[in-house]
Amino acid sequence: MSLLVTGSIGIDTVKTPFGVSKDCLGGSAVYFSMAASFFTPVRFLGAIGADCPFDLKKIFKGKKVDLNGLELRHTSKTFRWAGSYQGAMNEAITDFVELNVLAEEPPQMPEEYKDSKFVFLANTAPNLQIQLLDQLHKPKFVAADTMNLWINNNLADLKQLLKKIDCLILNETEARMLANEHNLITAAAKIEKLGPTVVVIKKGESGSIIRQSDGQLFVLPAYPATVVKDPTGAGDSFAGGFMGYLAGQNKTDFATLKKAVAYGTVVASFTISNFSLKGLTKTTKRDIEKRLNTLRKTTTF
Amino acid sequence: MSLLVTGSIGIDTVKTPFGVSKDCLGGSAVYFSMAASFFTPVRFLGAIGADCPFDLKKIFKGKKVDLNGLELRHTSKTFRWAGSYQGAMNEAITDFVELNVLAEEPPQMPEEYKDSKFVFLANTAPNLQIQLLDQLHKPKFVAADTMNLWINNNLADLKQLLKKIDCLILNETEARMLANEHNLITAAAKIEKLGPTVVVIKKGESGSIIRQSDGQLFVLPAYPATVVKDPTGAGDSFAGGFMGYLAGQNKTDFATLKKAVAYGTVVASFTISNFSLKGLTKTTKRDIEKRLNTLRKTTTF
Repeated sequence: MSLLVTGSIGIDTVKTPFGVSKDCLGGSAVYFSMAASFFTPVRFLGAIGADCPFDLKKIFKGKKVDLNGLELRHTSKTFRWAGSYQGAMNEAITDFVELNVLAEEPPQMPEEYKDSKFVFLANTAPNLQIQLLDQLHKPKFVAADTMNLWINNNLADLKQLLKKIDCLILNETEARMLANEHNLITAAAKIEKLGPTVVVIKKGESGSIIRQSDGQLFVLPAYPATVVKDPTGAGDSFAGGFMGYLAGQNKTDFATLKKAVAYGTVVASFTISNFSLKGLTKTTKRDIEKRLNTLRKTTTF
Repeated sequence: MSLLVTGSIGIDTVKTPFGVSKDCLGGSAVYFSMAASFFTPVRFLGAIGADCPFDLKKIFKGKKVDLNGLELRHTSKTFRWAGSYQGAMNEAITDFVELNVLAEEPPQMPEEYKDSKFVFLANTAPNLQIQLLDQLHKPKFVAADTMNLWINNNLADLKQLLKKIDCLILNETEARMLANEHNLITAAAKIEKLGPTVVVIKKGESGSIIRQSDGQLFVLPAYPATVVKDPTGAGDSFAGGFMGYLAGQNKTDFATLKKAVAYGTVVASFTISNFSLKGLTKTTKRDIEKRLNTLRKTTTF
């Protein structure tokens, strides 16, 4: 089933205890699409400026990623982010950020994208997320990401968005902040009262929680990775594996949601194994299935 | 199979966002014994002073806990601890501690305890743990707890201890500190090189990891508890459920170790549901089995 992602393409500079990656490819839509394309074709919507050094057609060559929604703006500049990680690398410190094209109008939705059934609105201002969503005809399952900035400064917009989506994917700090609640399961239940029937809480190296508004719950540790070089893109890769699997199955029942979380977890484990897209691009579907089996074995008693 | 615990009996004062519990019963040996007694008889070894207001015989009435090793020292004072928890209650802040009887000689080991096969040395100075361990004839599976204080100040003693035990149970901060390694799976592997064939790393609300020196690994989230009033004793209850199940089965193969971790997880979830021993004392074996099934369902995909 058709899967649309709207998000960023970034020129990233990342510093971790394992090295520095300067001006490398990043961005939520990029990580998401690469991850989701293992499971289903992806429709890509995002904008770059004239300075973008990456040939996305080449990067996604052989992958089922439709780049018809990639907009090149000749008078704009590409989104740039520089961040660093220390110690257990659980949180990125933003060293600098240049929104550039992300601060402009959102990209034009191609007509043929508008019937998309599965949709992921990567993190951006919630009013922009609403604007993008409102152009779609009749999506079946819409998931969105958000961040502390919008929870603190644009809560009214965010609450509007929450009424329109099926699933919110966010990290534990954001979940606690949005729900004003320390216990993550209670926080998920409180967020569901604001709209989404499904809440996914990402806990980094401690895995994730998914809760459905009927009370069904699934908790999964992270893949037991010992090679972790750069956590950038882990969350968007998780979302890509999650949404990609759902769209590929064209199902959103709780058993499928659980398996989708497991696939998201596994795909993210490849992303963090190397800088930028390096970990993900050399991965095969067989590698993913192998790690899924390891994850199942490692978590079953 | 016989299970011995050596540890503390405490007069605790605990403050959490859910209330204050003044001068209540605590201590590692107390939580451990209550937790382990669901699965196997427990031999209790610990000392109290003349000021101890608790009648442990009454408290353990009907439980399979042998109090022959409870030593009353008429001229000593009982161990006291006051701590508080904030926010997500992941870490206790010690408000004050009076070692009292814990700073004296360890309690006398009753002759009939010396053939114990399963042994848990709760957290205390590693040289005292060695002293206690050396009195035993031929234990089959010895687990010990430790803390940052000994890792920082008594590392040589701790390393001596590690050579003598089968299993080290510690929290994630301690594991990172002892192994000088951020990745917890690698940290466990490094700790195994120091002696124990099994390492259990407790991650509080994010569950636990168990690794065996042959590379076998099991990762389990915490029980998805929404009622968490006082985390005091969670770690010792976890250890109690874990060691109690192993001793009850008289097995230490990896499948049994995994199930033991699951039982430890469940028992700890009852401990944290109320202050002091209140959550644990009203729990039945049937409650435990019910939560074990819920935990399995919540973590299986």
